[in-house]
Amino acid sequence: MHAGSLLKFRVSLALRARAVSDIKILAFDVFGTVVDWHGSISREVGQMGLGLDAARCEAVAAAWRDGYRPAMQRVRSGELGWTRIDDLHRMILDDILPDFGLGHLGETQRRELNLAWHRLDPWPDAAAGLHALRARFKVCTLPNGNLSLLADLARHGQLPWDLILSAEVFRHYKPDPETYRGVAEVFALPPEQVMLVAAHKDDLRAAARCGLRTAYIERPLEFGAQGVEAGLKDLTRSPDIDFHARDFLDLAAQLGCPT
Amino acid sequence: MHAGSLLKFRVSLALRARAVSDIKILAFDVFGTVVDWHGSISREVGQMGLGLDAARCEAVAAAWRDGYRPAMQRVRSGELGWTRIDDLHRMILDDILPDFGLGHLGETQRRELNLAWHRLDPWPDAAAGLHALRARFKVCTLPNGNLSLLADLARHGQLPWDLILSAEVFRHYKPDPETYRGVAEVFALPPEQVMLVAAHKDDLRAAARCGLRTAYIERPLEFGAQGVEAGLKDLTRSPDIDFHARDFLDLAAQLGCPT
Repeated sequence: MHAGSLLKFRVSLALRARAVSDIKILAFDVFGTVVDWHGSISREVGQMGLGLDAARCEAVAAAWRDGYRPAMQRVRSGELGWTRIDDLHRMILDDILPDFGLGHLGETQRRELNLAWHRLDPWPDAAAGLHALRARFKVCTLPNGNLSLLADLARHGQLPWDLILSAEVFRHYKPDPETYRGVAEVFALPPEQVMLVAAHKDDLRAAARCGLRTAYIERPLEFGAQGVEAGLKDLTRSPDIDFHARDFLDLAAQLGCPT
Repeated sequence: MHAGSLLKFRVSLALRARAVSDIKILAFDVFGTVVDWHGSISREVGQMGLGLDAARCEAVAAAWRDGYRPAMQRVRSGELGWTRIDDLHRMILDDILPDFGLGHLGETQRRELNLAWHRLDPWPDAAAGLHALRARFKVCTLPNGNLSLLADLARHGQLPWDLILSAEVFRHYKPDPETYRGVAEVFALPPEQVMLVAAHKDDLRAAARCGLRTAYIERPLEFGAQGVEAGLKDLTRSPDIDFHARDFLDLAAQLGCPT
């Protein structure tokens, strides 16, 4: 390495170290980032004994999730008043069931299936990674999921959140800026002392526009094995995102937390 | 016991058992109920080395807390816009310091002292009691303290909340009904499936008016040893309050939780 390049490299490392020491709060997206919605929902659909093969169960999970953004958009646009994810999930479920020949499911089965979103399994590194990151940071949630759903996920996955925040607290869905700025306001900190951790680059870029720092987590299996083949996940490094990590333990190592 | 009395007694026990099985959520007041604000604030004031004897340190704690309700009332009445407890605590502190010959304290000391409310110690039974109660119920907070303060108290006291709720979420201070009803709405339950646990009967009675169940916790030392002599705590049983317990472990036993 040339002397000039070496100096630049050292300055860049020093700036990065200083920037890390300024970060106080890690705010986590949840669906896909902390928990495996695709695998968990596919499995729960399979366990209902409805006669669907594995591929069809995965298709139900994918279709259910596909309805998520359009449903939230109806709230964001004002077409719907404030509506929790639990209720949006149920509206989407009622819409898609006939497409899978399941229009005959009764109220009790629909209600029970809708609660599958409260029982999503965390990715294998999630709880250990959060414990490691807590040595140096406060960790909170910032998903669109509602508070009672998040409380159930935390208990189910033994996730050691310092605080469960949600779109429900701010009465705005991501990517509305009220959500990202809201985290900083709750902790009475400037936005650059908060870092969003997410497996979705659009979420991270919306947070960056509000002044937050950003960390991308790969989660290649978010959409199942087919999702990898179909190229549904962009796992490349993006220079506009501050950190890029395989999983939470990798992020903890990059941020200087004992793992 | 006469046969008639025995029947009445059995019916009353059966009704009570049924009522307990309907309760899903225990929502806890925090200052005084979960944590010992008086002892913790007195101690922190003493540790600042300001030359106050123990009685004066306790007087600072009492004066600080005395300003709490009037300050919240200014928010409840609309005289002040939404203001977090952290900021109300600081306004009260600035008001009372001259009364104790401490008007000379600088910004750094005032800010540090104000954060003493984020480091309040739990009562000795609190963490163990919450763990016991979690075997059967979801446990959440419902205090007037702000979210970041509550997150710090939970970490400091290792308190295993399923969810941290606060007046800050509902943008209303207790005893406004929006707070009590808000807990039931977050969990999508009718109010009678939520029980408020508090060391203050006025808080419990306001919750009961909103349809919540109620449990009183004695906490005789909430205002220190002098508070007991001065009769600041009403430790009598009140027939309009559903449960009366010495502490959280006693409550857990009464509610059938393994302790």
